[in-house]
Amino acid sequence: MGKNSKLILLTVLICVLFFSPILAQVRHEINFPDIPEYKTLKCDLHMHTVFSDGQVWPTVRVDEAWREGLDAISITDHIEWTPHKEDIPVNHNRPYQIALPYAQEKNILLIMGAEITRETPPGHFNAIFLNDIEPLNTPEFLDVFKAAHQQGAFIFWNHPGWKPERQGWFDIHTTLYKNKWLHGIEVVNGNEYYPDAFQWCQDKNLTIMGNSDIHGPARYEHDPELKHRTITLVFARERTIPAIKEALFAGRTAIWYKNKLIGNRQYLEALFNAAVEAATPHLIKEKEVRFNLKNNFVIDIQLERTGNHGPAKITLPAHSTTTITTETEIPSDTIKLSYTAKNFLIAPEQGLPVEFMINLK
Amino acid sequence: MGKNSKLILLTVLICVLFFSPILAQVRHEINFPDIPEYKTLKCDLHMHTVFSDGQVWPTVRVDEAWREGLDAISITDHIEWTPHKEDIPVNHNRPYQIALPYAQEKNILLIMGAEITRETPPGHFNAIFLNDIEPLNTPEFLDVFKAAHQQGAFIFWNHPGWKPERQGWFDIHTTLYKNKWLHGIEVVNGNEYYPDAFQWCQDKNLTIMGNSDIHGPARYEHDPELKHRTITLVFARERTIPAIKEALFAGRTAIWYKNKLIGNRQYLEALFNAAVEAATPHLIKEKEVRFNLKNNFVIDIQLERTGNHGPAKITLPAHSTTTITTETEIPSDTIKLSYTAKNFLIAPEQGLPVEFMINLK
Amino acid sequence: MGKNSKLILLTVLICVLFFSPILAQVRHEINFPDIPEYKTLKCDLHMHTVFSDGQVWPTVRVDEAWREGLDAISITDHIEWTPHKEDIPVNHNRPYQIALPYAQEKNILLIMGAEITRETPPGHFNAIFLNDIEPLNTPEFLDVFKAAHQQGAFIFWNHPGWKPERQGWFDIHTTLYKNKWLHGIEVVNGNEYYPDAFQWCQDKNLTIMGNSDIHGPARYEHDPELKHRTITLVFARERTIPAIKEALFAGRTAIWYKNKLIGNRQYLEALFNAAVEAATPHLIKEKEVRFNLKNNFVIDIQLERTGNHGPAKITLPAHSTTTITTETEIPSDTIKLSYTAKNFLIAPEQGLPVEFMINLK
Amino acid sequence: MGKNSKLILLTVLICVLFFSPILAQVRHEINFPDIPEYKTLKCDLHMHTVFSDGQVWPTVRVDEAWREGLDAISITDHIEWTPHKEDIPVNHNRPYQIALPYAQEKNILLIMGAEITRETPPGHFNAIFLNDIEPLNTPEFLDVFKAAHQQGAFIFWNHPGWKPERQGWFDIHTTLYKNKWLHGIEVVNGNEYYPDAFQWCQDKNLTIMGNSDIHGPARYEHDPELKHRTITLVFARERTIPAIKEALFAGRTAIWYKNKLIGNRQYLEALFNAAVEAATPHLIKEKEVRFNLKNNFVIDIQLERTGNHGPAKITLPAHSTTTITTETEIPSDTIKLSYTAKNFLIAPEQGLPVEFMINLK
Repeated sequence: MGKNSKLILLTVLICVLFFSPILAQVRHEINFPDIPEYKTLKCDLHMHTVFSDGQVWPTVRVDEAWREGLDAISITDHIEWTPHKEDIPVNHNRPYQIALPYAQEKNILLIMGAEITRETPPGHFNAIFLNDIEPLNTPEFLDVFKAAHQQGAFIFWNHPGWKPERQGWFDIHTTLYKNKWLHGIEVVNGNEYYPDAFQWCQDKNLTIMGNSDIHGPARYEHDPELKHRTITLVFARERTIPAIKEALFAGRTAIWYKNKLIGNRQYLEALFNAAVEAATPHLIKEKEVRFNLKNNFVIDIQLERTGNHGPAKITLPAHSTTTITTETEIPSDTIKLSYTAKNFLIAPEQGLPVEFMINLK
Repeated sequence: MGKNSKLILLTVLICVLFFSPILAQVRHEINFPDIPEYKTLKCDLHMHTVFSDGQVWPTVRVDEAWREGLDAISITDHIEWTPHKEDIPVNHNRPYQIALPYAQEKNILLIMGAEITRETPPGHFNAIFLNDIEPLNTPEFLDVFKAAHQQGAFIFWNHPGWKPERQGWFDIHTTLYKNKWLHGIEVVNGNEYYPDAFQWCQDKNLTIMGNSDIHGPARYEHDPELKHRTITLVFARERTIPAIKEALFAGRTAIWYKNKLIGNRQYLEALFNAAVEAATPHLIKEKEVRFNLKNNFVIDIQLERTGNHGPAKITLPAHSTTTITTETEIPSDTIKLSYTAKNFLIAPEQGLPVEFMINLK
Repeated sequence: MGKNSKLILLTVLICVLFFSPILAQVRHEINFPDIPEYKTLKCDLHMHTVFSDGQVWPTVRVDEAWREGLDAISITDHIEWTPHKEDIPVNHNRPYQIALPYAQEKNILLIMGAEITRETPPGHFNAIFLNDIEPLNTPEFLDVFKAAHQQGAFIFWNHPGWKPERQGWFDIHTTLYKNKWLHGIEVVNGNEYYPDAFQWCQDKNLTIMGNSDIHGPARYEHDPELKHRTITLVFARERTIPAIKEALFAGRTAIWYKNKLIGNRQYLEALFNAAVEAATPHLIKEKEVRFNLKNNFVIDIQLERTGNHGPAKITLPAHSTTTITTETEIPSDTIKLSYTAKNFLIAPEQGLPVEFMINLK
Repeated sequence: MGKNSKLILLTVLICVLFFSPILAQVRHEINFPDIPEYKTLKCDLHMHTVFSDGQVWPTVRVDEAWREGLDAISITDHIEWTPHKEDIPVNHNRPYQIALPYAQEKNILLIMGAEITRETPPGHFNAIFLNDIEPLNTPEFLDVFKAAHQQGAFIFWNHPGWKPERQGWFDIHTTLYKNKWLHGIEVVNGNEYYPDAFQWCQDKNLTIMGNSDIHGPARYEHDPELKHRTITLVFARERTIPAIKEALFAGRTAIWYKNKLIGNRQYLEALFNAAVEAATPHLIKEKEVRFNLKNNFVIDIQLERTGNHGPAKITLPAHSTTTITTETEIPSDTIKLSYTAKNFLIAPEQGLPVEFMINLK
């Protein structure tokens, strides 16, 4: 290498630093509160790069995660579907290797993962917490899962409903499940929600997952249907990769999808209680009481009355306070308002029951 | 009144309820944290209605206050300047009387006030915490202040710099001050900031005030210069009118103006400490440390380095997290970063000194 | 008046000029194209001020109209319902008199109007193009209409469906109609659409009206349901009050309501043709053609296929260009795409049929 | 390839189509009017992909261009600086080959280009309208330009001021210029403006260029400083690549940078005249005239008075109408207002002179 070449290299190095992505520096925290005993970690465990059929370099995924307030991601490029291979020779471990140092700078937890890509059925599956993807690149379907399992992987079924004509729980899924090679299912993938998969998770005690499956640059903020990335909230003992792994195997998750939360009752209840504050009444008249409900959440909460008091429907807009007016008839010390939070789904068609006890003294 | 008229009245009553301002129901809380010992109350103590030269009915001021997350307001219509008097016979106490029941429903603290309106000098003054405005409607200038003082009013000088050719501290102001009939000065009025007035407050121990002086419907959110209402932050023992009065006489205030805070050092320091969190470093290399600063405030904080470590300038955008990279040379347990918060003004041209101690162990 | 008072007055005059509503100066034009022979004027002919049960001074209505790109407004305070009369002695002509000089400065066409306010049925009616409202303040219902008619008023029925339990076309309406004292009906009032009234207009050849009926300060831009003011588009020969009157009596109107246009076919067709441009194809393959549709409108246009070619559903977002891909099978010179514009309502449940002829040579 | 593999391929093919970037389908047109004789084409002729030091796949650049309303782009990956070469073997023509079919579908004109990357001085240069980049990959600096010239390339100097300590016009630049191997200079690159380069263009009759030099996914819409992509407006006889080439060699360009236009006087004057409409006065009083100025542009136009009439400063916000009030003293038929458009730069520190003739009859 001549002296001139070195000078060029130095020049371009400065150039690259100069044009570094300064816009990526600002991180907008997503306001999901922690719940008792656990931290609420914001995770997206399904995404792609140019190393399979995605359209961005691996570091872009770290920038996006930082900017959008995520705690952890897994880049899960397809093992068997590599349409860019003419230009990018296949090397399954590269996306992780390229993204890792940048993730460390940005304090994003990066989990090694890959997407097992077969015809439907059985369909596509993500294996995460791997330490080497190459052993999964093997022709026999069950061998892949065995290889993943040997590395201690957490394995989940991706977008189980994306081919309506061939969807369903087949024998091959029972085989995986019985082998304990299937630990979760994507109940939401990008902008698609699969109620059947939600039921399967609850019946079979599988972990509820919701991920972006993003291929291009992140732009869902402009999708009028979506507005934000679909993510899995993981309730973990601490903000580390081992703690996320423990929480996933233990099934402690919920999904943030559009303006909904989807998950098992105990976690949605804990989130609701952490997010909504009822103030003591500020106006008590003979037959009317007024008090404020403050919603600290990023979600507009939709309530429908199930009891005898309060308005029939209430919307609590995100980051806002709403005044509730309710009539009272009998003199009493307290009044109980019973509602269903329609967009906190604790089963495919079932909202979360909630109560407010209002002290009138 | 005939039977028909009663029916009409009933009809229109229903009509009025039907067209009630439903959009006013959502309140966006402003995220100013409380400080040790005190609640941080958001107050606007200078505004007008159709009863002087404003353009809205008094209840509109309550709706706006609710929507924008204020705790307390004072409607301070001009006593001597009533350009609508041909259509609205003058009655100085009416704006308060009309707004009060609605303020109680909305949980907005409504303080009775009025604007004493004279040529400059002496200029305009607000007297608040009155119980009857009529006694202030008297020709002799000093008599007005005496009448206000007899009701225990807190009196402040409005927009002292709005007539550049006739501004300044005149003998009449000294007279008011010596009589203890002047307790504060508007250092900011609407979109105007008066550095001289800030200095006078600090020299003479007068309370620092910042108000909107709004006349039309609230629309500053569309002013590219302003973006939000100018308000006085009052550090009060509780959320009550007497507590606000005590705090104002004690000088416990600060101003939120454009992207700035203006006030005495102790309060700005307390707000800064409540708003900014430095995380423990997430990356420690031989010569480089990275850690996150989280700004929970509604204000973009602008920092300039005064010490030896850290970037020369840092902007911490509102509600965001920013990664700070600093070099280290000598092995040590901690690193101290010294900065000035340029938009936290503790004197006319002086930002707030701040420090971050970063633990490297 | 003493010398001192004059000085005060001068001072406050300057003060008032100083605090004039500078934010009202910017006008955002609404992009509705003119149609052949006619100008498309943006009109709101139903609104209130503090002079009946509204919450703003009359000049505020002019500011709002300017800011929102309107051409003409009518302030139509209730004649019989004046809840502020304790504070504002009733004088029905005052809102017009106060607003007129300001409307002339702002180039807003101001039409004198009033709301005849009776129990339902018959309900509420606006009479506009009046020159004196006092003669309409008379107890007998039909006398009011006679008085309005004598002034050449255009009279329309307001919000005919706002009391579901007592709505409908009654004998009294037939009487008005036969006397030619009823010329139009509000098919939309604020955020309410009345399909029955649309049908009545078409059956009886009455003019289709849509207005805001605004009472408080204009804030519908924050209503997630509404986003903009409901207005009547008037297709007039020129931008003058007489031309608007001629067009209203001739029935040349349409309504802009939420993301919909409502009106007779000929006007909606003319607007559609003026708003949507089909480009010549930019890609013609053996079995596939691509061309662009540009929507210059402020409305997202929703199309559903009724013919054999093109996608089943197309959304053309406002102010945007959308690429249409369609298959072709037989070699031909042109391809015809037939659709219904679902949100261009030419009858209560009927969208506008539209066609695109694409030239393949 | 076995039967099973084919099925997998078919599956993933459907999958890829399914996950195609639907959000990229909407194109927001930029409202720059055509000028007499020429179409105003929106061009970005400097950008990068993963094939040099960028972070996106080439098709992403087409999607972005479509979405943002551009007409033409050139992907100009570095020839000599290929930091991803370990993962992506160098092949300079690939970005163009990959992007071309997609550009044809999207109706984006794609111009083959490359960035000649040397130490400063001489610095970096783009050669565009190439048909093969490989011949430019040669060690001798002048040989590269010769090779580009032989293909009929238009060659411009990139970001001439980005290394303040080594910037300037050196002998090597004179050599290029005299050989007619240098045809334009980037007066703006991304968010940097180089006034010296603007002067060089005017002194030496070089074409004025402004480009994004984008490396990551397009996100400048969130940069408070930038808001939109820096582009070159090319005034071309038609919307084709040869017409763009003719216009560039003829110097018919201007730059849209932040809220500014930069270019030679004749083009900025034509754009101003196409964008701003003065209405006939709507109010003529004895000493005062009011008329509206409508700005159809995407730019807020800043005017400063240079004559005797009209306000000292006027801002005409984008897509808005502004009322101008001017005093008149002598009865006359017309009034002339003379201004400078401060943000239409026709020389490094010089705004465009403009006049409005207002007819008072």
